[in-house]
Amino acid sequence: MIRLPFVALFVAAATATAAPAATPSPEVLRDAALDDGIAWDIVEGLTTEVGQRLAGTEAEARARDWAVKKLKALGFANVHVETYTMPVWRRGIETAEIISPYPQKLAVTALGNSVPTPAQGLTAEVVGFDGMEALKAADPSSIRGKIVFVNHAMAVQQDGGSYGEVGVIRRLGPSVAAAKGAAAIVIRSIGTDRHRMPHTGVQTWAAGVQPIPAAALSVSDAEQMARILAQGKPVKLHLTIGAGPAGTAQSGNVVAEVPGRDPKAGILLVGGHLDSWDLGTGAIDDGAGVAITAAAAKRIMDAGRPLRTIRVVWFGAEEVGGLGGDAYAKAHAGEKHVLVGESDSGADRVWRFTTSSGSPQSPLIGRLSSLLAPLGITRGKDPAHGGTDVAPAAAATRSPVIDLRQDASRYFDVHHTADDTLDRIDKDQLRQNVAAWTATLAFFANDPAELAPTTGAAHTE
Amino acid sequence: MIRLPFVALFVAAATATAAPAATPSPEVLRDAALDDGIAWDIVEGLTTEVGQRLAGTEAEARARDWAVKKLKALGFANVHVETYTMPVWRRGIETAEIISPYPQKLAVTALGNSVPTPAQGLTAEVVGFDGMEALKAADPSSIRGKIVFVNHAMAVQQDGGSYGEVGVIRRLGPSVAAAKGAAAIVIRSIGTDRHRMPHTGVQTWAAGVQPIPAAALSVSDAEQMARILAQGKPVKLHLTIGAGPAGTAQSGNVVAEVPGRDPKAGILLVGGHLDSWDLGTGAIDDGAGVAITAAAAKRIMDAGRPLRTIRVVWFGAEEVGGLGGDAYAKAHAGEKHVLVGESDSGADRVWRFTTSSGSPQSPLIGRLSSLLAPLGITRGKDPAHGGTDVAPAAAATRSPVIDLRQDASRYFDVHHTADDTLDRIDKDQLRQNVAAWTATLAFFANDPAELAPTTGAAHTE
Repeated sequence: MIRLPFVALFVAAATATAAPAATPSPEVLRDAALDDGIAWDIVEGLTTEVGQRLAGTEAEARARDWAVKKLKALGFANVHVETYTMPVWRRGIETAEIISPYPQKLAVTALGNSVPTPAQGLTAEVVGFDGMEALKAADPSSIRGKIVFVNHAMAVQQDGGSYGEVGVIRRLGPSVAAAKGAAAIVIRSIGTDRHRMPHTGVQTWAAGVQPIPAAALSVSDAEQMARILAQGKPVKLHLTIGAGPAGTAQSGNVVAEVPGRDPKAGILLVGGHLDSWDLGTGAIDDGAGVAITAAAAKRIMDAGRPLRTIRVVWFGAEEVGGLGGDAYAKAHAGEKHVLVGESDSGADRVWRFTTSSGSPQSPLIGRLSSLLAPLGITRGKDPAHGGTDVAPAAAATRSPVIDLRQDASRYFDVHHTADDTLDRIDKDQLRQNVAAWTATLAFFANDPAELAPTTGAAHTE
Repeated sequence: MIRLPFVALFVAAATATAAPAATPSPEVLRDAALDDGIAWDIVEGLTTEVGQRLAGTEAEARARDWAVKKLKALGFANVHVETYTMPVWRRGIETAEIISPYPQKLAVTALGNSVPTPAQGLTAEVVGFDGMEALKAADPSSIRGKIVFVNHAMAVQQDGGSYGEVGVIRRLGPSVAAAKGAAAIVIRSIGTDRHRMPHTGVQTWAAGVQPIPAAALSVSDAEQMARILAQGKPVKLHLTIGAGPAGTAQSGNVVAEVPGRDPKAGILLVGGHLDSWDLGTGAIDDGAGVAITAAAAKRIMDAGRPLRTIRVVWFGAEEVGGLGGDAYAKAHAGEKHVLVGESDSGADRVWRFTTSSGSPQSPLIGRLSSLLAPLGITRGKDPAHGGTDVAPAAAATRSPVIDLRQDASRYFDVHHTADDTLDRIDKDQLRQNVAAWTATLAFFANDPAELAPTTGAAHTE
């Protein structure tokens, strides 16, 4: 989800006081974390012993059981599940086949909230568009009763920025096509790879729109479709989608804490999401994120009780619309959050940090910058937003946000595909993430200085 | 297939005479081919307009129709199909699911000549082996009624040598497991990638063995299976395979010629195979090979009539056991073949050449070496074997063989998977292949010198 950033205000830090003598410095904890084995142990266990964990399913419930057991075994305090009820969507059969002019099967997967085709599938002519603007501009008469195909040319960007812009095809394309009377929509996967691996992902129907079957072709198959369409002959596609809504179920956030010495000093909230899409085993999205943040918190816990409480949350139901993040924000709006952050862009190295308040020139940010620089991390100029999991909490509590941005160059090769498995994770890059979060949490958990709370108003810069 | 090499004998070349003045030199033709567009046009058309073309199916028949039309349009002479009858094997449903201890789906595909499970699938305990030797050494009592899993650690090798050695798990593993009473076998895919793409491929039942369902897990899933087995708990797998024999059908080789000036001067036979596995669109295996060799022959044809006839054959039914190659050898055993060669290791650059006769120190090989050196190709010391398509013809006609070996570093990432699609082909590397074959064919088609025929006896060096 895309959240609006908030106005950044810097409050001068109180005089910094040292943590108790027994506690190693953030620098020492940072360097020790470069040998971390905890994060790998968590993500290996979760992806091997649970595997996929689609929100609202029995698999996500098993993941919560696994998580509670694991977090207790790691020694965290106050380990518990905070539940909520949610609508469930389930995948079914999914096939696509060009009938003419060149009969062949295509690799396809349903998008979140797709409705099913008739059981025997539907056959219709394909009408192709080169992007969202072309689809928006199209006359409904050219679309009615047809299968809309939307192509694009998403390219690798280190900051993952193309996902925001090109991803609109997935998030809004189905509603635009449905509003114009399309029989169904198949988009080119929102991904940067060239594999026969369609990328799923959520989309939400606009108000008043009659839902249609909505799916993604793999990038290779989308290029095949584009080549065939370019010949100018009518293309007939047979599409069978079994996915659809499946009632309601209970989901939940798994919460664990490192209790601070001073309950009034506020909470540092960190985490990632426990649920995953159902095609892979959710290793980089977001097994890595829950593993990284929990490993960092565990390392600080083992080094001596911090000043502030660190709360680790493994959020539920992120992929399908951020239900866990919303539930957390609602339940904890009254608590003082000193900093919130999440890890949810894979397992590759952190390359930049940014905060939602605190001038890049301030002493506090300067000290943080010095702490992270040896890891190859520089400070960013744009304000932090958090992500789907912690942004609602930030808004509800006016907490400052920190982003430790991961290199997204490889992320969208694999994101939301069957290929999101453990072997995607580079152990050394995973450890660098743990070191970055360990240093950051150690810094903010023990330093009396705080970033200024945000105002909640929209950012106007 | 693995063929035995033959004794290499060198016969002194006749005095070289120049080709007619109008014909450009092999060097000129070589360099012009670095701008080739013919090969890309062929492989793009075949993979787009036909797609997969499993041997003995209606899709392979469509591929032959496409091929005849294409080769005629390119101006080849004597374009025709030589048919033969073959047993057909077809894929069906294929699913694998760990039932316990950690329920999850695995990516699986049937191996050639697999028989089906019962329609509802079969469930059995998994017994794992680390390679072929361990499976061979196992007591049948440890295997009876179980699903055998065979792991390995195939690594990238430029010459593709690991495929020969590790591939024995696919080629022979099912028969060994079946002979020991296994209920089914799932091997780790014979591949060097880390994707959820199982690699299919042929295997043949040993005499007297009762066939069982035989399949391959993707490399990622095989590593998952190995991780789970390593915990020591019993692992139960549910396997459903629908594949099986499906009667007989007609297949065929598509033949095209560049007629030579002297019918007695013998034939140069080159080609690749037209059939493909059914998972991808057969771009690197072997759309590229048929495209490269036909493009080279076409370029020579357009440069002026050569001394010798060049015969291009797009063989049928290679993947399922080399039926097209065998049929060609039988039909053409009485014709003089001066040289045979095939392109069937992808579309990456040629890095080495070798011949089955002719000392590397001979003047003829020396001149060929000079011709290929500017393309980055060096001469190899081991004798050429040809491959599944042309080795039978070489044996039947005692023809010398040339191998233009392609860099196989990437080949087994994609080989026999759904990922074998057009986007795997690097256009510049494809052109280098065309240049290598153009130079080689131009050299042997116009030079009165010949390599010595082979004796047909086994190579003893």
